[in-house]
Amino acid sequence: MNAPAPRFQPQDPDFAARVRASFERQAAMRHIGARLTRIEPGRTEIELDYRDELTQQKGYMHGGIIGMIADSACGYAAYTLMPATSSLVTVEYKINLLAPAVGNVLHAGGEVLKPGRSLSITRGEVRTDQGVLVAIMQQTLMMLPDTPDAPD
Amino acid sequence: MNAPAPRFQPQDPDFAARVRASFERQAAMRHIGARLTRIEPGRTEIELDYRDELTQQKGYMHGGIIGMIADSACGYAAYTLMPATSSLVTVEYKINLLAPAVGNVLHAGGEVLKPGRSLSITRGEVRTDQGVLVAIMQQTLMMLPDTPDAPD
Amino acid sequence: MNAPAPRFQPQDPDFAARVRASFERQAAMRHIGARLTRIEPGRTEIELDYRDELTQQKGYMHGGIIGMIADSACGYAAYTLMPATSSLVTVEYKINLLAPAVGNVLHAGGEVLKPGRSLSITRGEVRTDQGVLVAIMQQTLMMLPDTPDAPD
Amino acid sequence: MNAPAPRFQPQDPDFAARVRASFERQAAMRHIGARLTRIEPGRTEIELDYRDELTQQKGYMHGGIIGMIADSACGYAAYTLMPATSSLVTVEYKINLLAPAVGNVLHAGGEVLKPGRSLSITRGEVRTDQGVLVAIMQQTLMMLPDTPDAPD
Repeated sequence: MNAPAPRFQPQDPDFAARVRASFERQAAMRHIGARLTRIEPGRTEIELDYRDELTQQKGYMHGGIIGMIADSACGYAAYTLMPATSSLVTVEYKINLLAPAVGNVLHAGGEVLKPGRSLSITRGEVRTDQGVLVAIMQQTLMMLPDTPDAPD
Repeated sequence: MNAPAPRFQPQDPDFAARVRASFERQAAMRHIGARLTRIEPGRTEIELDYRDELTQQKGYMHGGIIGMIADSACGYAAYTLMPATSSLVTVEYKINLLAPAVGNVLHAGGEVLKPGRSLSITRGEVRTDQGVLVAIMQQTLMMLPDTPDAPD
Repeated sequence: MNAPAPRFQPQDPDFAARVRASFERQAAMRHIGARLTRIEPGRTEIELDYRDELTQQKGYMHGGIIGMIADSACGYAAYTLMPATSSLVTVEYKINLLAPAVGNVLHAGGEVLKPGRSLSITRGEVRTDQGVLVAIMQQTLMMLPDTPDAPD
Repeated sequence: MNAPAPRFQPQDPDFAARVRASFERQAAMRHIGARLTRIEPGRTEIELDYRDELTQQKGYMHGGIIGMIADSACGYAAYTLMPATSSLVTVEYKINLLAPAVGNVLHAGGEVLKPGRSLSITRGEVRTDQGVLVAIMQQTLMMLPDTPDAPD
């Protein structure tokens, strides 16, 4: 169960710049204040500060917001391993919410379990700045070869 | 497969006002501009106008945003059937993204498949204003009896 | 929410015979006693009689067995719409178990929500012979073009 | 992401015997030939030999069979941490199938991520005897307090 995650060789030496540029085109990430704080082959991390405008009815961070940053962290983890000329889409994800998201900062980490020519499978975790595990995700993505990753 | 969804009797005659008040406490729904447009026993609908600030890197509505409104529509569908003194939490959800969210308005509908004293199971669909099916969701919620549905 | 499922035109006029032949190659379906009882474009149904050897620790039908027939019903629903020369694999599925599987016969129905050149998305339901909804599934499949659907 | 799984203290000192007895009441596990090979607080492992009668149409182990052993491994991982007088039910699970299950033996490992008084969240992995990751699972279970874990 506890074998370390595999190490991956990116096909695109400029994967970090490409992933960062794609993230910066995600207006939705900017709108909620999310930051892409780590980009490695097969892994990324996104941070999000607690903000009143992101809460649900009881004052905790909204589960949908937690899903958003986990979805993006996992998706960009997969995108690090894709060719420079590709784009990608999320096929599906499943998230379990384990504890209320209490704290000042949320850390969403995504990692690739299986990269693929067509489909990639990733796993994500969201933790508070106290290390409490808030959510776990399992996600499927599809690579779009020779497709611009920007508006037409 | 195609039996109509069951009809439910709400325990709380004021379920619609209670659900609406809870939705209005969700700052995150306000932050993205979502509107609760339908509240029936076991069903709700949320609408969201296309806004540039909610897009992913290619200019479509972000999959995480779609997940947010589906999650809330399903959750409030379940909440219509819960007692007046209860609150609820999302245990987990799974979403498939079927098509790019192109159009001016997204419609997220949630419906209860099985209400429960503890767990409720819901199903959701998100469509564009052209009727294109954009996403489907399956979700599990837990009722919190005798718990305020507002910040402590 | 309740629009009828779309009607599909199969590409392969002999889809029913092809699906039936594939099902009959599934030794696992035979091992548990499952029968493929309905094959239509975009839909199939599988029936399974209650058998002591399929139970979990309390004497109900095992949740994994319920998952098996729902997985196959959904997969074959997708396979009805694929070309004659294709095979398919299940990418992932998610199942909610809603009620104990009590009764003499389980009916698993699968239907296609979105067929695709590469990925197909399906939804399934399992009911008892009393009509009780026992489980719901959401599933993703991938078509393998020009691939034999039999052992090499 | 890679923090070691937490260590748990079982409430029931006889958890291993209790879990084993429950597994042995699962006729479905016996019917497919699954063996419970490891029982630790918060973890279990199930092994399953390749058998022709468990295959899908191409001669690989059926995805539903893989789901069955992962479901049971995860469920019994949670059951190790529950009180002696409890039973449990699977609420839902989601499985991604990553590679064909080729080989002589499948190893399904389940581990608890969050035990709970009501709900427990687990994660599972299935590997071949060559170490190839075949499937990953995320699962939710509900404890039934003061409930016999055997037929009435």
